[in-house]
Amino acid sequence: MFEERTAIKVSEAIKRVMQFCKKGEIEYINIDDAEGRYLGKAVVADHNIPSFDRTPLDGFAVISEDTASASPENPVRLEVIETVGAGNLAKREVKAGQAVRVMTGTMMPEECDAIAMFELTNEIEEDGKTWIELKRPFKKGDFVSFEGEETKKGDVLLEAGTKIHAGVIAVLATFGYSEVPVVKKPVIGIYATGTELLEVDEELVPGKIRNSNAYMIKTQVHQAGAEAVYYGQLADDFDQCYDAVKNTLDKVDALITTGGVSVGDFDYLPEIYQKLGANVLFNKIAMRPGSVTTVAEKDGKLLFGLSGNPSACFVGFELYTRPWVKTFLHSDKPFTEWVKGTLTEDFPKPNPFTRFIRSKISFEGGKITASPVGMDKSQVVTSLAHSDALVAVPGGTRGYKAGDEVDILLLFREGTKDPFKDPEKLRVKKSNDDA
Amino acid sequence: MFEERTAIKVSEAIKRVMQFCKKGEIEYINIDDAEGRYLGKAVVADHNIPSFDRTPLDGFAVISEDTASASPENPVRLEVIETVGAGNLAKREVKAGQAVRVMTGTMMPEECDAIAMFELTNEIEEDGKTWIELKRPFKKGDFVSFEGEETKKGDVLLEAGTKIHAGVIAVLATFGYSEVPVVKKPVIGIYATGTELLEVDEELVPGKIRNSNAYMIKTQVHQAGAEAVYYGQLADDFDQCYDAVKNTLDKVDALITTGGVSVGDFDYLPEIYQKLGANVLFNKIAMRPGSVTTVAEKDGKLLFGLSGNPSACFVGFELYTRPWVKTFLHSDKPFTEWVKGTLTEDFPKPNPFTRFIRSKISFEGGKITASPVGMDKSQVVTSLAHSDALVAVPGGTRGYKAGDEVDILLLFREGTKDPFKDPEKLRVKKSNDDA
Repeated sequence: MFEERTAIKVSEAIKRVMQFCKKGEIEYINIDDAEGRYLGKAVVADHNIPSFDRTPLDGFAVISEDTASASPENPVRLEVIETVGAGNLAKREVKAGQAVRVMTGTMMPEECDAIAMFELTNEIEEDGKTWIELKRPFKKGDFVSFEGEETKKGDVLLEAGTKIHAGVIAVLATFGYSEVPVVKKPVIGIYATGTELLEVDEELVPGKIRNSNAYMIKTQVHQAGAEAVYYGQLADDFDQCYDAVKNTLDKVDALITTGGVSVGDFDYLPEIYQKLGANVLFNKIAMRPGSVTTVAEKDGKLLFGLSGNPSACFVGFELYTRPWVKTFLHSDKPFTEWVKGTLTEDFPKPNPFTRFIRSKISFEGGKITASPVGMDKSQVVTSLAHSDALVAVPGGTRGYKAGDEVDILLLFREGTKDPFKDPEKLRVKKSNDDA
Repeated sequence: MFEERTAIKVSEAIKRVMQFCKKGEIEYINIDDAEGRYLGKAVVADHNIPSFDRTPLDGFAVISEDTASASPENPVRLEVIETVGAGNLAKREVKAGQAVRVMTGTMMPEECDAIAMFELTNEIEEDGKTWIELKRPFKKGDFVSFEGEETKKGDVLLEAGTKIHAGVIAVLATFGYSEVPVVKKPVIGIYATGTELLEVDEELVPGKIRNSNAYMIKTQVHQAGAEAVYYGQLADDFDQCYDAVKNTLDKVDALITTGGVSVGDFDYLPEIYQKLGANVLFNKIAMRPGSVTTVAEKDGKLLFGLSGNPSACFVGFELYTRPWVKTFLHSDKPFTEWVKGTLTEDFPKPNPFTRFIRSKISFEGGKITASPVGMDKSQVVTSLAHSDALVAVPGGTRGYKAGDEVDILLLFREGTKDPFKDPEKLRVKKSNDDA
């Protein structure tokens, strides 16, 4: 019964999954619903910003020639003929010796070519008229915001695949995208398998545990930008599982199952993939946790067979499912960002395979550090709740010390172009390490 | 007309806002709706994890005493009397010389006290029975996961104020939280003021711009964890604005307005606060952008008067509104996390006040670096879309060089306990700097 499987590297497993990526279709949705979605098309400026010459502050629009001789000793006096607020247009023609009081954002009166801000003027009421005195000259263009100085018509402002957050929404609104072209979310079906699983509202009974993977994966699917459809729990029964998987495949863009991928007597997913005629991309990876993560392909759709162990399930999604989702969403940076950083404490466990350690990062003195969470067993169940990174240490090593440089996968960042590369053993440590 | 205002420090402004923080009430919602919400109560383990002794791998449950003499030369043979999968219980009593085939997650048969994994056993069919051969002894407890070894009943697993993400959901499901105690979201009303504002679906006309602040702020409100109610645009008309603000205050927990807080003729918010009898906490801050950010308090509710300039509006929300929201959500880390990092390029602008520069961070060789975005004017409008951090440089400085150490506010992180402190000028630079 015990089946031999060939473990492949993490980077090879990622590569095999990425061969079955596709890009989602585009749909138009209201800007009010666009938050958190991904742009389906690049956003190109269809007009200049500003779209007209305007004042960037409260002051007076003047004709610069009028101010040429102004000095503290010989101030120039101009008649204020009108006050214009942002959104309104000057109604009167401005002649030599005249000025217009204008508020921030107001379009420049046609005849004016400079702005004298409030702080540089004295206002005087005389002869039933309002005057300003200027004690310095202003040059043509002084303090004016010119049409197109921020953005020119035709500029590419945002690339397809950009996640729509607050700053992106501001750009979309500025350019009149009341309807936004976004990528349709991929629909990811989820089954949790295991006779030991109780629903979250069921009382504990001996031998059983509550199903936490389904809720966790649903949230990971959402956070990656996809739609999750949870189809429920399945007992370890071949026929039930086979029918469920078979009948769900045509309703989803990809299917995640949790559990049932190891070599136990009731781990039916391998047999199910076989009966379906699916192409198994891999069924063992040289990594911990999650070595039994299995991915298969049927008619171009991926079946992600994640481990039933919560941490392995979590890591499997982040490494293999997430980049598939991001590519579907037109991102060219689909991979979890990984950086170099420093371990804050010893990690004495030997690492027969590449190990992903649930960790929390911090920034001290300009450097990135990572602290493993759940080092003592009492925190295993909550370690995922406190992690925002995975420290990756190479296989074939005996342990790591505080201060060692390690690879860190940042779970909260949008992504990177480069897929994770399995770390190599540090040469300097080799003498202490396993073969 | 020109009004003198007294600028206060950023840290002082934050302090004044925080005096009017309150904590939101708790409501119970279905775990399916809990993603992105904030825990209203600490989560305490109400049972041990595991809740029973179990096998963490596929193998055979044995009585350790039976294996004491096992060696490669003299293997011990045990009769396999039953196979049990996870979620099921052993049905037969295990006697000396017997073993049970058990799958990962299965509860230990009562009489057994060690696990021999598949890889360490030979299976033999003989006399119509199934036997295993063990070539090594197993000690009491070998490879068993014991009740409570991950988490003990009574352990505090998650603090109130924790944002509910995938790992947190897993803990909630494990402990049977089908209904989750979360903090009711604060309701934040939004008005965009300005006669120059067009709706996002309106055609551009001279002198007008599309309203982008409302959409941006709505998204920032959501991202902070609050509910946004957008009440629409208001022209620069005192009575209209006054009525709108007055009539909205009792429907919301806080009210944001954008625009109308400077010293222009049609900047009515200061007068509105006065007529309302509101207590103005500050109306000028020694910062750029956003120096005119004004916050007032009326009957314990805050009125955030953010600037109409998009970047200033953005920064004002992040610095002053966000920590108020986070505190409402019971977080004890309400402030945007700020860290030391290195500037990647020159920032030659003089900084009369503390300046917040829209920036993008990256991690190179274990260090945090920040690159200002929108340095050239052509990117002003999109700089917010490309920023994930604000670099803060102290007032009274003439500019910064690539390689200088600066404070960086990380916009994408959950928060920190310490409010932002206005940076001091670097002593080494003082000779070159303005007073």
